[in-house]
Amino acid sequence: MIKVVILGAGNLATHLCIALEKHTKILLLQNFNRKGEKILNCGVPVTNNPDEITDADLYIFAISDNALLDINNNFSHLKGLVVHTSGSTPMDVLSNFNRKGVFYPAQSFNKHLPVSFDTIPIAVEASNKSDQQILLKLAHSISTTVYVLNSEQRNALHVAAVFANNFSNFMYIQAEEICKDSGIDFTILKPLINETIAKLANNSPRNVQTGPAVRKDNKTIERHITTLTDQKKIKLYQLLTTAIQNYYE
Amino acid sequence: MIKVVILGAGNLATHLCIALEKHTKILLLQNFNRKGEKILNCGVPVTNNPDEITDADLYIFAISDNALLDINNNFSHLKGLVVHTSGSTPMDVLSNFNRKGVFYPAQSFNKHLPVSFDTIPIAVEASNKSDQQILLKLAHSISTTVYVLNSEQRNALHVAAVFANNFSNFMYIQAEEICKDSGIDFTILKPLINETIAKLANNSPRNVQTGPAVRKDNKTIERHITTLTDQKKIKLYQLLTTAIQNYYE
Repeated sequence: MIKVVILGAGNLATHLCIALEKHTKILLLQNFNRKGEKILNCGVPVTNNPDEITDADLYIFAISDNALLDINNNFSHLKGLVVHTSGSTPMDVLSNFNRKGVFYPAQSFNKHLPVSFDTIPIAVEASNKSDQQILLKLAHSISTTVYVLNSEQRNALHVAAVFANNFSNFMYIQAEEICKDSGIDFTILKPLINETIAKLANNSPRNVQTGPAVRKDNKTIERHITTLTDQKKIKLYQLLTTAIQNYYE
Repeated sequence: MIKVVILGAGNLATHLCIALEKHTKILLLQNFNRKGEKILNCGVPVTNNPDEITDADLYIFAISDNALLDINNNFSHLKGLVVHTSGSTPMDVLSNFNRKGVFYPAQSFNKHLPVSFDTIPIAVEASNKSDQQILLKLAHSISTTVYVLNSEQRNALHVAAVFANNFSNFMYIQAEEICKDSGIDFTILKPLINETIAKLANNSPRNVQTGPAVRKDNKTIERHITTLTDQKKIKLYQLLTTAIQNYYE
């Protein structure tokens, strides 16, 4: 039975508390957060006093990247394994802790929306093998997809996620605006979007790239640029068209 | 009963033949294609002689955009309603035809993969109301989502689709390469990608943009840029980060 304290009351902290509280093989002892706020949908005891933090096997700091430096300086009295949950922050930000690690669920969370950890990949890292085992055990207890990644890999994964999620979402924003400007319901594009994603299940994206850029259909490209009125969108369209064409040369 | 001839033997032509052949309210009379090729998985009679094209109510030219000009010049002997299936080509490319229109399924097709038209949005346009009714009837007979869009709107939709599908797929390519370079399985990102798409069901993409760019997390942005080694990816990362930040200003 791994005894756990979770620190933080944000989106991820809340979902971790909910998931671990229910778990029969994990003992969630306590939550610590600065304001002493009750955790949404979770009955775990809460403290806001650093000196009242209970002894545990594992302390999970599910807090913002910027707050991690402060942890390193002000919580070094904690005994046991101390981990953070940041994708882009190296494990060594916890330099004052003897036993340290990272427990990174590769998903974005919203405390007001339910979540199932089953399908969320979790990447773990620890400064020694036995601590790695603890994190693996915890990760496997809530998720079917667990990876051991070092800080460099995790950071690369985080950059990749920016492209795959944040930048692709920005493309959807452009698409929605273009539709709106012409009185078209953005919904009309959703089956196409779903199809693009469905293809990824069995294909590398580089093998399923379609559209005027990759087939060098200059007539259509020109017509598209003439259609766009917003200079920012024209620039973006041209840049990405050129980038795709360079990529496939 | 609408009597139809489909012209072309490409991905869309093949799927239209298959879908209409089975249909009880549509009579698929014939396929015409230059090589006189049998249509994959479809028993429709085929000709490659323009003079042997059967009389029909509707002729659907499911051919490449570039070939449409040729149609306008060389098939003007056809009686009945003549439509093309191109998203980005105006209806008026068929200027030599008295009765003309467009029947545009907003999806990408591969003749070797099965397709269900039910969920594929179809946009129709016609030069008069009674022909529009014919196209609406045909569209509703195979799809649950049918729109009337004029050529300008359809072209805008096509540009929007380039952003939503082609450009977002290019983002997945970047993500996959970044993963690969660090020995990470791209699969780890798929739940995150699915989550990004799932959010679109109930939200405008502009309300669910996440990541370091929109939250102006310059520390993470700098770390990401340091992580990337490929100059093209660095340039893309910087450009899109700036574009997102300008957008939300």
